[in-house]
Amino acid sequence: MNVRHVPALLAYSPDKMRKVGLVDTPNLFCDAYCLEPGQEQTAHRHGVGDKLYYVVAGTGQIRVGNEEHAVAPGDLVCAPAGEEHGVRNPGPERLALLVVMAPKP
Amino acid sequence: MNVRHVPALLAYSPDKMRKVGLVDTPNLFCDAYCLEPGQEQTAHRHGVGDKLYYVVAGTGQIRVGNEEHAVAPGDLVCAPAGEEHGVRNPGPERLALLVVMAPKP
Repeated sequence: MNVRHVPALLAYSPDKMRKVGLVDTPNLFCDAYCLEPGQEQTAHRHGVGDKLYYVVAGTGQIRVGNEEHAVAPGDLVCAPAGEEHGVRNPGPERLALLVVMAPKP
Repeated sequence: MNVRHVPALLAYSPDKMRKVGLVDTPNLFCDAYCLEPGQEQTAHRHGVGDKLYYVVAGTGQIRVGNEEHAVAPGDLVCAPAGEEHGVRNPGPERLALLVVMAPKP
């Protein structure tokens, strides 16, 4: 049994958003997405696979379809399969999200 | 687009662990599990479906297979399909977890 303490595993890169792999099974993956101010994951879509975002630290903007919303710690958002989605961190703090996707793309 | 602010949605019952539905799609569900001190979800297993636990608040004990582990806020645990798993809150605080399951049982 593997207990991952997420706050201790967050890691940032100066060049682009960093993904930290936490759990990977045949059915799903769970990553931490770590964004310095100014970084983003540009909007994209998956034919299959619903994605959940849960904000662990910082503030940011999540886009699903044509809508973009401000998010803060404790916020949960679902990007259903087929919907365009992305996340960006306008700053001023670092942004960390728990991201789950199932099924895997 | 539906942003759920999880800390504001936590709800507890005096009689047993309370599940608060947050996201439900054909591929997965995400609930908050809310446990008063002394409450538990007894160990059980799913033939299909991996379950992720992420501790939002409080401390508790999570069991996967024959192992039980103390968990605290920020801890992430995966109970893979087929493995017996459960959670209990010995107290003294309330325990709140984000729980994702995919595929659904």
